This record gives sequence, C-alpha cells and structure tokens, in this order.
Amino acid sequence: MTLPKAVLDQLKVVPGEKFQISDHDPAWLPLDLRELGKDERKARAAELLADNKRELAPAQDVLYADGRKALLLVFQAMDAAGKDSTIKHVMSGVNPQGCEVTSFKQPSSEELAHDFLWRYAKAVPQRGRIGIFNRSYYEEVLVVKVHPEWLDKQRLPPGGRGEKFWQQRYDAINDFEEHLSESGTTILKFFLNVSLDEQRNRFLARIGDPAKNWKFSGADLAERALWPAYMEAFESAINATATHHAPWYVIPADRKWAMRATVADIITTTLASMELAYPSLDDAALAALQTAKVALEAEGT
Amino acid sequence: MTLPKAVLDQLKVVPGEKFQISDHDPAWLPLDLRELGKDERKARAAELLADNKRELAPAQDVLYADGRKALLLVFQAMDAAGKDSTIKHVMSGVNPQGCEVTSFKQPSSEELAHDFLWRYAKAVPQRGRIGIFNRSYYEEVLVVKVHPEWLDKQRLPPGGRGEKFWQQRYDAINDFEEHLSESGTTILKFFLNVSLDEQRNRFLARIGDPAKNWKFSGADLAERALWPAYMEAFESAINATATHHAPWYVIPADRKWAMRATVADIITTTLASMELAYPSLDDAALAALQTAKVALEAEGT
Repeated sequence: MTLPKAVLDQLKVVPGEKFQISDHDPAWLPLDLRELGKDERKARAAELLADNKRELAPAQDVLYADGRKALLLVFQAMDAAGKDSTIKHVMSGVNPQGCEVTSFKQPSSEELAHDFLWRYAKAVPQRGRIGIFNRSYYEEVLVVKVHPEWLDKQRLPPGGRGEKFWQQRYDAINDFEEHLSESGTTILKFFLNVSLDEQRNRFLARIGDPAKNWKFSGADLAERALWPAYMEAFESAINATATHHAPWYVIPADRKWAMRATVADIITTTLASMELAYPSLDDAALAALQTAKVALEAEGT
Repeated sequence: MTLPKAVLDQLKVVPGEKFQISDHDPAWLPLDLRELGKDERKARAAELLADNKRELAPAQDVLYADGRKALLLVFQAMDAAGKDSTIKHVMSGVNPQGCEVTSFKQPSSEELAHDFLWRYAKAVPQRGRIGIFNRSYYEEVLVVKVHPEWLDKQRLPPGGRGEKFWQQRYDAINDFEEHLSESGTTILKFFLNVSLDEQRNRFLARIGDPAKNWKFSGADLAERALWPAYMEAFESAINATATHHAPWYVIPADRKWAMRATVADIITTTLASMELAYPSLDDAALAALQTAKVALEAEGT
C-alpha cells in the first residue's frame, strides 16, 4: 500500500508559488486516513509505514549495487517535532552499510573558520548511499537568522547583514544543491511542521518521563519563545529554496504515526522513480566470469 | 533466547593460548542447533537472530542516550565469507543514526602518505555510537603481508620488512586498541572463517546469478590461489592481537544462518555487559525542569 502521488504532491512546496505555513495544518491527514475511526487510522498508518519499510530495504540494495546515484534526505524542524524519532522509525530496517546519518550540532572552531557550507559538503553521501542530515546547512538561514549575533563567530568578510546577505545564502544553497543534483544526488527536504501547542505537549512529556528528561534543556524554552521569528525564517528559507531539483515537503507533524508513514512513502516513491538497476557486465567481463567458472569447477577434478 | 556464555566463549580466542585455524571447523554449530534436524536448525537460528535483533535496538538506544561509551565491531574475512551480508542481516533494525559502517577500499594517495592507522583512526565511532569496520587496519597485516610489494606505495621509512617489521605493526595495533578501550570504546573483532570449498560454492553462485555478477571479479581468483599465505597471515595476526581489551571471535562461516545468529548474539551479550544507563540529571537540572514545567503549564491560562 502506498499513498497516491496526488496526496504526496499536496505536501510538496511548488517552486514559484508562495508558501505560507498558515496554509498547512500540522494535524492534516491524507483523505483515506481521515475517513477512518481513531484506532483504525493508527493501524492503517502503521501498515503503510511497514509496507514502505519493506520496500525500502530492497530499493536501497539496488541503489548500493547501482553505485551511480545517491539520495540525500534533509530534516529540519522546531524542537520536539520528531526529527530523531522519524529517522529512527522510518530508516531502521535499512542496511546501515548503505545509510549514514549526520547530526549537526554546535560547530567547531575549525568549522567556523570555513565557509558556511563546508562542514555539510564534507558529509554528503557518496554514490550508492543514502545520506541523512538531521539538521543541515539550512540551520545557517534558520537558527542563525533568528540569532544574527551568531554570525560574529563565523569570521565573515565585512558587509551588511540585511536581506541581501540572506538572499546570498539562499542562492549559495540553491547552487550547492543544483551541483549535487547534477552530480547524481537526489535531494528531498522535509520540514516537520509541528504546532506550538503540540510542542508544549511534547516538552511536558519529556519533563514528565525520567527516561526522557535528558532530551529537554532549559534553552529549549528560550527558543520556543522565539516561535514567530522561527516561522518567518522557515517561510523565507522555504520560499527561496523550493526548487525542482531539491523539493521541500511540509510534513504535518502533530501526529507522529501519520508523519512517519508519510515520510516513508515519499522516500520509497522517490527511490522507485530513480531508475536504479543492478550493474550489468559487458561481454569481456562476462567472458572472464565464464573462464573463472571453468577454473573453479576444474579444481575438484 | 540467547546462546549460553560458554558457547560464545568457545569461539573466543584466548589471549596467550596458541590459535590455529585448523582447530576451528567452519561448519561448526552450537550444541543445541547440532542436535536438531536440518530445517529445524535453520528455523531455530533464524529465531535466535530475530530475538537478538529485537534486543539490539533498545540496547543501542541506551548506548546513544548514555553517550559515554562506544562499540567498535571489526569484520575480517576471506572474500565471500559473508562480511557484507552479516552486517546487513544483523544490523538492519538498528537506528542508522547511532550506527556507522565504514568499508575500507583501496587507499587514496593522501591516505598512503600517512601512517598506516591514520585512515582507520579517523573513522572510529564517537561515544554513544556503534561503529562497524568492514575490513579494517587488519588489512595492513593481512593483504599487505601477503602482497609485501604494496608496502612500496606506503612511503615508509627505510628498514627491513621481516618479522620485526610485522611485529611492530601488531604492537602498534595493540596499542591503538588499548587506547580506544581506555577511552570508552568496547572492541569486538570477528574473523568470519569460511572454508576453501565453501568459498568456491559462493563464487560459483555469484557467477551463476546475473544479479550477483557484479560482486565477482577475476582478481578474486588470484587471491584465492594465495589461500595458504592468507591463512598464515590470519593466524599470525590473530595470535599477536588477541587481547582481553579487544578479543577476536572466530565465527564458523560455512553456514550463513548460523554465522548471523552467532554474531548477533555476541553483540547483544556484549552490549548487555557494558553497564549503560539513561543519563540522570542532578538536582539543579531537575529543579530547572520543574521551572520549565510551571512556565509551560501557565501558557494556556
């Protein structure tokens, strides 16, 4: 079972059309789930997730064997939207040999001393692999835009830090993604769209559960207080970087079970469209195989 | 269901005791599988693998949250022994966010210009993670020992390339592993012990199946011809580097289903012994959580 392409297209930001977060309901469900009762919905979503995970493993196998293309998945969201848990639930089941996740945290001095794309460019997946960015170069136009004082540590050339500066960053990101895309990397960008209310519920759950306490820090509340500035930064960044070669998907994140099923579906649908194939050998290589076969069979005699 | 510790200990090379490959049957089965019929054996092994995979996911979760320790798994073997497929079958199911596999292929010029441990040291897992080396620094005392002419490309200081030279490499490896171990990394080394006969069967299967053709190269036969030299190199290396802080396990590899179950069992048994725990917060941090809770709850009012 997979979702119809039309459903996935509803979540895709159309390049050139104005994207507004307020048009996107964080609790949205695809039609065929919406019509079901509460328990049935969850069961159907779990089934959809399981089906997609089953498809993901063999698709990754061909991606790996094919060896000419890569898939880069970018996850961006407010805290507690479910980046970690989505990666865990959607991607466990794939062969870790063909999948690398990079979580970008506070940059090192060496990283700050380089251009803003440097540390991310080093982590892109090689051909044949799935690369997952848990946070990404988009932080450089999201959290950094909300906290422009962080730019001071980046040792940038002098100049204004107004709209032109951010537009330059968006352009650099588009160029970087275009280059990756031309080099064989398919890029999918997921904005996990959680509501302010649901973030509160999840923070309270983290505080209430001793096993989850370590996931919560006082700094999370300070960022929550900047919610409107973050939403504005997301809107600007997504509008500026929604391209055909690196589309943004706005994933309703208030229902984790629906989010996971939807993300899994977009990934498998994309892999299926990548025209991957097991390498086929040319005539000379096939002849060499036959020679080897004869030699191996003769060993026993 | 897990295997008794005594069974696992049978596969462990005891530091100080002479290890001989000829003492190890590549088709060995643990006693409780040996007593079963053919189909039952496979079913029981599959069950054992599934049980262990189920245990692996939550154990990795705690390793990640704990954040003070790492696990490094080293896989070495002759071609077609099943390194890739063991990693795939044992480790798919873990969260790829906490697990990174590095496959070491032909070194680059930059890597050859550094000491022989350099490229491997860069890839060790950070704390909280499982790192898997598909081939490793042991290649430097295995394939390189069988092909000493490869040393010419390594731009080494002048000097003999006799036993003393290799002993120096073994010592350097032991020191490196001791350092990792002292820094919080548990190391498990797996020698997947396939027989000469079974390698032939698997090569013929790769030649016979078009979807597997790409896995076979003519060069594989040339290495097969050097089997005795490889076995000697494995014996020397394992004898020289079987330590308490970084044990070698010799895994019977002629039956893939038994190999996977055994490897999975050793990994989960080891993780269970690592004394991992979810971080607990100190009083000040707990008080901060309560303050945050009050603030979040007041929001709605």
